[in-house]
This record gives sequence, structure tokens and C-alpha cells, in this order.
Amino acid sequence: MSEVAGRLAVQKGAQSLESLAGGMGILISGVSGVKPADVVILGAGTAGSNACRVAVGMGAHVSVLDINPPRLAKLYDAMNGRVTTIMSNRANIEEELSHADLVISTVLVPGARTPRLITRGLIKRMREGSVFLDISIDQGGSSETSRPTSHHDPVYVVDGVVHYCVANMPGAVPRTSTYALTNVTLEYGLMLADKGLGEAVAESAPLRRGINTHDGRIFHEGVAQAFGLESFEW
Amino acid sequence: MSEVAGRLAVQKGAQSLESLAGGMGILISGVSGVKPADVVILGAGTAGSNACRVAVGMGAHVSVLDINPPRLAKLYDAMNGRVTTIMSNRANIEEELSHADLVISTVLVPGARTPRLITRGLIKRMREGSVFLDISIDQGGSSETSRPTSHHDPVYVVDGVVHYCVANMPGAVPRTSTYALTNVTLEYGLMLADKGLGEAVAESAPLRRGINTHDGRIFHEGVAQAFGLESFEW
Amino acid sequence: MSEVAGRLAVQKGAQSLESLAGGMGILISGVSGVKPADVVILGAGTAGSNACRVAVGMGAHVSVLDINPPRLAKLYDAMNGRVTTIMSNRANIEEELSHADLVISTVLVPGARTPRLITRGLIKRMREGSVFLDISIDQGGSSETSRPTSHHDPVYVVDGVVHYCVANMPGAVPRTSTYALTNVTLEYGLMLADKGLGEAVAESAPLRRGINTHDGRIFHEGVAQAFGLESFEW
Amino acid sequence: MSEVAGRLAVQKGAQSLESLAGGMGILISGVSGVKPADVVILGAGTAGSNACRVAVGMGAHVSVLDINPPRLAKLYDAMNGRVTTIMSNRANIEEELSHADLVISTVLVPGARTPRLITRGLIKRMREGSVFLDISIDQGGSSETSRPTSHHDPVYVVDGVVHYCVANMPGAVPRTSTYALTNVTLEYGLMLADKGLGEAVAESAPLRRGINTHDGRIFHEGVAQAFGLESFEW
Amino acid sequence: MSEVAGRLAVQKGAQSLESLAGGMGILISGVSGVKPADVVILGAGTAGSNACRVAVGMGAHVSVLDINPPRLAKLYDAMNGRVTTIMSNRANIEEELSHADLVISTVLVPGARTPRLITRGLIKRMREGSVFLDISIDQGGSSETSRPTSHHDPVYVVDGVVHYCVANMPGAVPRTSTYALTNVTLEYGLMLADKGLGEAVAESAPLRRGINTHDGRIFHEGVAQAFGLESFEW
Amino acid sequence: MSEVAGRLAVQKGAQSLESLAGGMGILISGVSGVKPADVVILGAGTAGSNACRVAVGMGAHVSVLDINPPRLAKLYDAMNGRVTTIMSNRANIEEELSHADLVISTVLVPGARTPRLITRGLIKRMREGSVFLDISIDQGGSSETSRPTSHHDPVYVVDGVVHYCVANMPGAVPRTSTYALTNVTLEYGLMLADKGLGEAVAESAPLRRGINTHDGRIFHEGVAQAFGLESFEW
Repeated sequence: MSEVAGRLAVQKGAQSLESLAGGMGILISGVSGVKPADVVILGAGTAGSNACRVAVGMGAHVSVLDINPPRLAKLYDAMNGRVTTIMSNRANIEEELSHADLVISTVLVPGARTPRLITRGLIKRMREGSVFLDISIDQGGSSETSRPTSHHDPVYVVDGVVHYCVANMPGAVPRTSTYALTNVTLEYGLMLADKGLGEAVAESAPLRRGINTHDGRIFHEGVAQAFGLESFEW
Repeated sequence: MSEVAGRLAVQKGAQSLESLAGGMGILISGVSGVKPADVVILGAGTAGSNACRVAVGMGAHVSVLDINPPRLAKLYDAMNGRVTTIMSNRANIEEELSHADLVISTVLVPGARTPRLITRGLIKRMREGSVFLDISIDQGGSSETSRPTSHHDPVYVVDGVVHYCVANMPGAVPRTSTYALTNVTLEYGLMLADKGLGEAVAESAPLRRGINTHDGRIFHEGVAQAFGLESFEW
Repeated sequence: MSEVAGRLAVQKGAQSLESLAGGMGILISGVSGVKPADVVILGAGTAGSNACRVAVGMGAHVSVLDINPPRLAKLYDAMNGRVTTIMSNRANIEEELSHADLVISTVLVPGARTPRLITRGLIKRMREGSVFLDISIDQGGSSETSRPTSHHDPVYVVDGVVHYCVANMPGAVPRTSTYALTNVTLEYGLMLADKGLGEAVAESAPLRRGINTHDGRIFHEGVAQAFGLESFEW
Repeated sequence: MSEVAGRLAVQKGAQSLESLAGGMGILISGVSGVKPADVVILGAGTAGSNACRVAVGMGAHVSVLDINPPRLAKLYDAMNGRVTTIMSNRANIEEELSHADLVISTVLVPGARTPRLITRGLIKRMREGSVFLDISIDQGGSSETSRPTSHHDPVYVVDGVVHYCVANMPGAVPRTSTYALTNVTLEYGLMLADKGLGEAVAESAPLRRGINTHDGRIFHEGVAQAFGLESFEW
Repeated sequence: MSEVAGRLAVQKGAQSLESLAGGMGILISGVSGVKPADVVILGAGTAGSNACRVAVGMGAHVSVLDINPPRLAKLYDAMNGRVTTIMSNRANIEEELSHADLVISTVLVPGARTPRLITRGLIKRMREGSVFLDISIDQGGSSETSRPTSHHDPVYVVDGVVHYCVANMPGAVPRTSTYALTNVTLEYGLMLADKGLGEAVAESAPLRRGINTHDGRIFHEGVAQAFGLESFEW
Repeated sequence: MSEVAGRLAVQKGAQSLESLAGGMGILISGVSGVKPADVVILGAGTAGSNACRVAVGMGAHVSVLDINPPRLAKLYDAMNGRVTTIMSNRANIEEELSHADLVISTVLVPGARTPRLITRGLIKRMREGSVFLDISIDQGGSSETSRPTSHHDPVYVVDGVVHYCVANMPGAVPRTSTYALTNVTLEYGLMLADKGLGEAVAESAPLRRGINTHDGRIFHEGVAQAFGLESFEW
């Protein structure tokens, strides 16, 4: 789903930049003689890399920030140098956000609550009519100003910045999402159907890592921590 | 404006393919393991070429049809071969439309009514939930099923095909459009201001070609023909 | 050798599409205004990736199917999105084969007989004059209709589909193949020459894995299974 | 047809480099760790540019020579710098041929006999097992050693150099060639059918330029010169 | 020579950004995690386009300004969208210069004195340690702060901005420059040698346009204007 | 620092090819109609890959040699086939050096003295005015003819070959280098500050591997071997 969310994010961000959505009324691609949008992507994981590819493909000027240098180097290579990679730290985030037209946050700690990387103060320094799109909203959101919205009423404005924080973004393209999800999960479904829960989980480490709760107990450490409860080993 | 319309068309087409808009619920980019959308672009002029570049950049599989072989060859070169170019004729249009997910029509005769290239029969043969986007709607539209819509209510469905026929599409991104328009028109505005209408038009062939009506008479041949009236030379 | 076979396969497939070879008489590259060939590659391993790169380079429209999503994502990245990646399953294989002009099968289980992925029924559904090229013929072939041919009489036709199933394809370019093979094997040859079989195999896991039979016994499990015999550990 | 011939030439050249055809047994693409073929293309017109694109796409190292600097600059741009462009003169041709694996000659004076640019001495200096492919053979050939061959017996060897000089090369891919030809000629066919010869030729300059002989007289200056006869104006 | 100057300019600009030359000590390419240089190129003609290609190739973030929209569109296409094109006007120049690390000015009116596009005030607003490189210095220079320097002492500093204004830049690479010059001039030299001045100039419009002075009279209008003298027609 | 050194090497090599530096006076990029430089890079690690990317970006014809086939295949993919990869052995090095305009050596054994891969005999066979740039000079240099130079007097000539052997090359771009270094080392600095040497080294394997000497004893095996001393485990 991260691939879908990352790619869809650019499409949704582009749309939020239109004046109908409250954005500053610019075309993400620009045209010859008129600058494209400045897109800043937080995180160079699967969602971030996929957002990067689509944003660059649309013609935007794209910067990606991450705390992991080899991951940035890998993305730089995969994009043939068509992206600016920047070490993620407070100073660089602040500088990039201050001139961004569209910020896509993909920051996420799997299974745990997303860290509140973006303060309200940072949002305030963004440009009037710029867009903040938070992919990690399903895990709590990465900005102090993020709160979940829906596909039917996707955006709201804080301090002049359009916020797009739709939970379950891939739901907008159910056909693509279903195929994408089935491609990677069918194997496990068949395993469960063939062998039953006990045997399947015993044999498959990925299945085991996927169990959040069972029979009233929490088996995922991140989930347990998020709720201040005890976690068990399968 | 053709550059803006062409690039924006892909963004709008992608959005119309979402299930919220009535489309078949696919992501134009696809993801790894799931096919991207099949985008068919009618016309390889400025609007068509710009639509092509953005659609390819987003990861779609793109075909462009035109009746002008050198123009197709030029687009093929400009896209480094990342596009399928096809001679435009009835048989090829029919074949391409039958498997397209998104059709973008950029067919236009400057100053004249757009020819009704697409019959209702052709629309009927398109896939359920596919999208037909008509850039030439400002000149009457290129399909028998086209009728103007607005940014606030952009789509309607005919025979299962989502129609996006917003008149004045570039209005969605007024900032980019204003700069783009000013870049190419400022020169003429200054000319008119400096020299007055008579002298300016006398000296500048492009200005002369741009005059549709003046002092109750039509000076543009295409416009005159469209209304069945007489046209004058300046 | 998989690199050589994969790249050469496209060259040979292109040639088989000419009418001299019995193919439908199309140019794999197409030209501007005329569609290129639809190339479908089964398997995204070394042979499949190399075939993909050359086929895309020649201008074909290329789809690659594999059962491994991360491998598809990696190929998509390496090709900068110039390939359609599709999850491999019966339904998708059937759909892709039905409109393919050239199918290149690289499916292979190292050391074991290749699974008969392609039934005669699937071949029957392919287009008249299309080409099926089976790289895995050295391991038994991946279609029910595959049988080994030679460089001097490379093709035969089944149900209207040209079959190219030359065993030891890289033999057509002995100079390139020799260098490619020497590049990766010289190290082991020197090891054997310096240390003798016993010591060399004891020290080197890759050498050990490479032993099929020795002194009348089978040491490769896949080979043993293929012949229904017992395998030994070195 | 120049597009078809140019693209097909690389495919045929690659095939002639195989040892079966008498070539030096190398893969035009090379593989990682083994050099690709050195391809030298004479002429940067339509045939040469198309050959260039396919050769680069297959992974070869490509140089193109032409006497027209702006044409070289345009090709360099169209190929994004993935080609070495070289001014065509005796010294440069000699140097490039001396290390080429495959030479594709596209030199042609429309309607006239091709100049014998390549002497037997130059062919002698080429590498053993290299390939000389002469697209201009239909107009007499551009080398002293060129003589027409057919698709059924396409090559012969002179001084160790494989010569591929098939007349009417596009005949190998009749389906693609027919579409390509029809795309650009249909318009004139319809004109002739609608208006008859006299009126059609009177109105259309391209048609007029295309007439070689009519009613016992030669109307094409190049053809007239080639036969030492008088030419007429239509 | 414009091709040579444009490409060499980036190399020289990169070098001037090193701290040895007085620049701010940055690598034009950046590295993964550290931003590349912001390069601003004034003019999208031959020199500007060539500078653009090399700067993008080195990994810089490049903007090009020009007053000619179609020229910007053409460059955008030739660069596959890897450049930001911006309409040239006072406001845009000022904005771009304020954040540039390297400015390359290629502004030139053939045969006439270059207009002083860049005021000292603009230079003052540039960043400390940034570089201004003036290709048009041979025609007087495009900044109020430009004065000719030599390859042996190429730079000087004004208001914290390193100025590189070497006259006859291509002299640094005489071998490449000689070939480049000969490629395009040999034809005219041969013409003069064969036919003598009078006949050659009479027959060849380009030769005629190239004559600045002859027999004590000025034949080039731009040169005449620059010196306030009368110009003659040949 | 290897990223900085690799990218800077091309910039410095290009500069050394100018006639001012004693080079043969060619532009590394070439221009249309004039060949670019032949750049040979020894080693496909981080420095070599980065040098490759910049050299290709500038328009040079680039070959990279390495003894590791998968590393060559990976670089070939990352460069989209825009580089010739060659197995590194004595014969291939000799052949490549004999026609190179610029050789960049990145050969390095971490912590140990660089092997003297290049003999004086090989240097002698290089072209007059060609450039040999030795990135590994900080570890002793990879040629018998290498000796450390400084940024103020960077080159010397041996047997007609310009040698660029500046120790600590990244010092030329201190700002970029400082950020690059801080990006990857800050984490360890904070660890040392927070926990003290003992605890930090105990917990962090990378820190442990980074210790060369402590308290009078050598902890890095390579360093110990280079000096013929004993090494200790932490």
C-alpha cells in the first residue's frame, strides 16, 4: 500500500494546489517559462521514493529528506540524479519547508505512533496557499496540525496552509489497491487456509510479525507500547 | 494556454479515474506488479505533446495519434521513444479507444468549430469506468457526447464513460496560467499601449492574425465560417 | 551466460518476427506512426532483466511478469519506469500472451527441470505469426510445445506460433560468451589448479554447490530429483 | 521507408556479427564486464538517426559521421548526448572504420547514384570479422565492394569483412513497412484517385517532385543525370 | 565556438566555486544528502543550451532565463524537463540571482556591444562567495562589474562575488576548439581559395554577412553602430 | 568523502586536460562534431561510481574496470547502460590506458597501502598530454609514478602524462565536504559524547571498526600489517 499511497500523494497534492481546493493556484508541472512547484518529501522509504518518482515525472522540483545517508544515495541513483537529497535534521527541514509549495510527509515508525516531527511553528513559516499532505495520518500524523479527513471532505486550512490528511488514501483507487494488496498477501492467505492459524504462524516469520492481537493479548511490541500495555511473544 | 491545458489534463484525468469521480478506481501510475493506465491522446500539437510528457512522467502507458507523420516523429524523438505514436485514422482511433482507460482529446482547428471526431458509437465501445477528457470543449468539443462543464461540477457519465469537459481548464491554476499568458502576450500589450491599435496592427502580423472582430465586422476567417458570415481583411 | 542469453534473446526474437522466419513480418521497434511489438517476458531474474533492457532499448512495448513483487519493483526502478511489471499468475499470463507479438520465457529452477508453465492451450490463444522464444530449453523448456532446436535450423511453428528454442543460445556469439564466462569462472579455475579438487572444494562454497556428479555419485539435489536418484553431500 | 531501413539495419547488423553469419561472434550489446560493439554510422539523416537510436538502445557504443554540423548537433540533442558525433571527412572516416565492429552506411543522394565513399582500401583496413552494411545499395551502394544481395542469401565476405547489402531491406518486415508507407502515401493516392494525374500533379508540389518518368520522358533531374539523358520540367 | 564556450563555462564555474579560487567552497554536483549548486543561466541560445546540458549532467540544479518563450520550450524538451525555464525580466532575474551559487551569462547581440543587463546593485544582492561568469566579455560583458581577465589570472572579486571574465575562453582547450572551428569554417576557406574574395562573397550569403571591414570601410551594421560610424552594403 | 572525491575528480581531471595545466588541450565534453574525452575509471566502488556519473553527465565516453562482476553489473544498471564496464585484468587495463585521455584511479584497500597497480611502463604507453588522476594518493597511490601534491601546485608530468595526485582532494570544497562528513559522523560523535569512549565502542560495531590506535596499541589489522606491527582486538 505504501507504493500506492506514495504515488497517489503527488496526484492529490497537485490537486490541492489548485485554487478550487484552496491552494495557491499553481500547476505542479509548471510550463516552459513558469517555474514548477517545489515539492519537499520527508522520508526516502517506499512511500517517499514512489512519491519522488511521480513528482519528478510530473516535472516538479523535488527534494527528499531522510536521516539515512545510504538510503538517500540509493534514491539519488534510482532517480538518475533528478532529485535533491538532503540530510534530515531540524535546520534542513525548516529551510526546505520555508520555500516549499507542496510538502509530503511519509514519516512512519511501523506499528507505533508517528513522531510529531512538524510543529505548528514550522507550519506557520510555510508559504500562504502551500499544501501539507500527511501520508502517516493513519498512524496519528506527523504534524501537530494533522487530523484525519475523508475523501469526501479531504482538506482544511491551518495558518494559510492547506492540509490534506485523508486516512486510508489508497481507497480512492480501489482496483489498483486491491491488486497491489493481493499480490503480496495472497501467499499468506493460502497458507492460512491450507494449514490453519497455528501451523501457518509457526512456520512463517512474516505472518508472525504481522499479528497485532490474538485471543485478548497484544503480540506486537509497537502496538503494546502505543497503548501502554504488555506485549507477548507468540 | 495549450501547455497549461495539456499538462493539467493528465492531472484531471488521473483524478477522474478515481472511484470518487465515478472512474474505474485505478491509479494512473499503476504500481510494481499492477499495470498503469492506458492513456490515449488525440493530437500531437502543443496540448497533446504536453499531456504526453506528463502522462509518461506519471508512469502511464501512452499512445498518441495524429494525422501528421513528421509531427509524430518529432514527438517520438522528444520523448526518447517513451511513447507509442500511431497514425490517426478511423480504424486506429477505434482500436485505441476500445482498450483505453483515459482518452485526452486535443483536436482543434484554430478559430473554427472543432470537428466531431468521436461519435457516440465510439464512446459506447470504451470500457466501463474509463474517462474521456475533452480539451477542445471551448471550441465546441470533439465528441458527439461532449458538453461544457465547470470546475465545480466537472464530470458526467455517458454510456458508462466519465466525461470531463470543463471549459477554461487553466482557470484551476490561475497563478501559473497568468504568468504563462503574460509571458507571451505582454509584448503585444506594450505594443498596443505604445502605438495605438491602428499602427500596432499594421506593423505586427501576429496581432493582425489575432483580431476576431472589430467595429462590427469579422476579420477572422474561421470565426466567419463558423457563423456563416462574411470575413474581412484588415 | 544468463546476461548473454537474455540480451541475445531479443535479437533472435526480433529476427523471428521477420517474415523470412515465418513471423508476422513486423519490426520490433515499430516506426513513428506504426506500433512497436508487444514483448512479454516471463521472469524478472538476470536473463529476464537483460532481455527487458534490450527490448526497451529497441523501442518495444515491454511487460515483465514475475511471482516476486520486490524483484518487480527493483526492475521497475532499474528501468526508470519504462516497463510494465505484472504479478505472474495464470490469469495475467493468459491475458498478456493473448496480445503479445513476442514472448520470451526465462523461467528456470536452477539444476532442476523447468516447470511446464505454458500449456498448448495457451500457445493456441497467441496471435498468428507471433513468436515464442524459450531460453530455458536447456533445462527442458517451459512450454508443452517446446523442443530443442539448433542455430542452423532454429525455428518451427506450432498452432501458428513461431517457436525459437535453440539450446545453448550464447554459442551464436562465442567471443562475447567466452569473455563473459571467463570473467566469472577464472577465479575457480585458478583455485582448482593451485589447490587440487579436494582442498579447493573444501574451501569454496560456490565450487561445492557447482558439483553435479563425482566418482559415480550425484551431489546436486536438483539433478538427483530430476532423475529420481539419491543425492549425496560432499 | 528510411525509418524502417535505419532501424532494421541495426537488427541485421547485430545478426551479421554472430559467428553463424561469418561475423566475429560478438553480441552487439556486450554484457557487464565485456565491451559492446563499436558501431559507426555514416550519415545523420533519417536512416542514420533511426539506426543510431536503435543501436544506442541495444547498448552499443555509437559514432555518427556527417558533413552537416547542425544536423550532428540536432542528433546529439535528440539522443541526449548518448552518441559521439564526428565531422565526416576522409581522415575521420578512416580512423573510425579502423576500429569499428559494425559500419552502417546510409549515404545517399536522392534520385542519383550514391557516391562511392568507401574504397576497397578502407574496407581492407577494417577488422577481421567486422560487418559493413550498406543501406544505400538500392541506389548503387556506397562502397567499391558493395553488390546487391537478397534476404535469402544476404551476406558475402570481402577482405575478411562481412558485407550485408540486401536490396529492399524493409521487405523483411512487410507488415510494418506497409503501414509506414501507407501512412505517408495514402494522401497522394487519394489525390490521384479524386482528381486524376494532371490536376493532382499541377496542385501538389510533392507529387510533382516524385515523378521520375512519364510518357517516355524523364522528369527527375537526378535520374536523367544518372543515365546521361535529358530531363524535362512538368 | 559558442558550444565550446558554453560547455567550458560550467567547468570553469565549478572550479571558481572551489575555495582556492575564492568561491564558497562547494561542489557543483553536491553529494547525496548535500545540495548541489544552484546554477542560473542567462540566455537559452547555443552557449546557454550547452552550458545547461553540462550543468545538469554534473548534477546541478539549473534555471535558464530567456525572453523568447518558444526557445525556452525547445530547451525544456531537449533536456527532457530536467531544467527550470523562466521568462527573463527584471523581477525574475533579480529573484534568481539572489539565491544562485553560479550565474553564467551568455547574453549577446551578435556584432554589437552586449547590453549591460546586470547592474552592480544586482551583483551586490548575490550570495557571498557565489560566482558570476560572463561569456559575453569578448563583446564588452553583460554586467556593470565585468572586465576582461586572462586564463593566467582568471578571477577577481566584487562585493563578495567571484567574477570569471576570461576573454577568449575556448583558448583553454585549443585542440577541441580548432577542430570545432575548422568543422564549420573549412568550407568557406576552400571557397575563398578556389574563387577569390570577390566571387566567393558574391555567391555566398553567409560569407557576406561575416565581413566586418574591408578596404577601410565597415560592412557590418552592428560594428558600425558600436563605433558610431557608417556601414556599407557589400 | 569518497562521494566528494569521486565527483570532484572529474572536475579536476577536466581542468588538467586544459592546455594551461599541461594537458592536451581538449574539452572533456567534446562538442557536436568533435569527440569527447575517453575517460577510464579504475574501480567501481563509491568513488568510482560517483566519478562515472559525473563524467557521463559531462558527456565523456566512460569505461569502468573492476574485478567484481556483480559490482560492474550494478553500475551498468544504475547508469542505464551509459557506461562501458570491463573486467579488470592486466590486458584490459593496458588496452584501455593506451587510448585514454583521462584515467581516474580509485583503487583502494581500506586501511592498507594501495597496491601499485599501474607500473611506469603502463604510464609510458599512455598518450602525450593525457591525464592520470590518483584518488588513492592518501593511501600511498596506485601508480609507481604517483607522489602527493597539493591544491596549490597540483600537477607534474611524467613521460608526457600529467599527474594529478592532490592529497585530501575534498579540501577544495570544504563546505560540501563538511556537510557530507557531518551527515555520516554526527551520530557517532553524539554517541561518544553521551556515553564515553568505553561504552560507545562496546555498543557500536562501526565505531569499533573505526579505531586505528588507542593507548599505544594498534587495533586495525590493515594498519598493523602496513607497519609490520601486531594488531589487537578491542
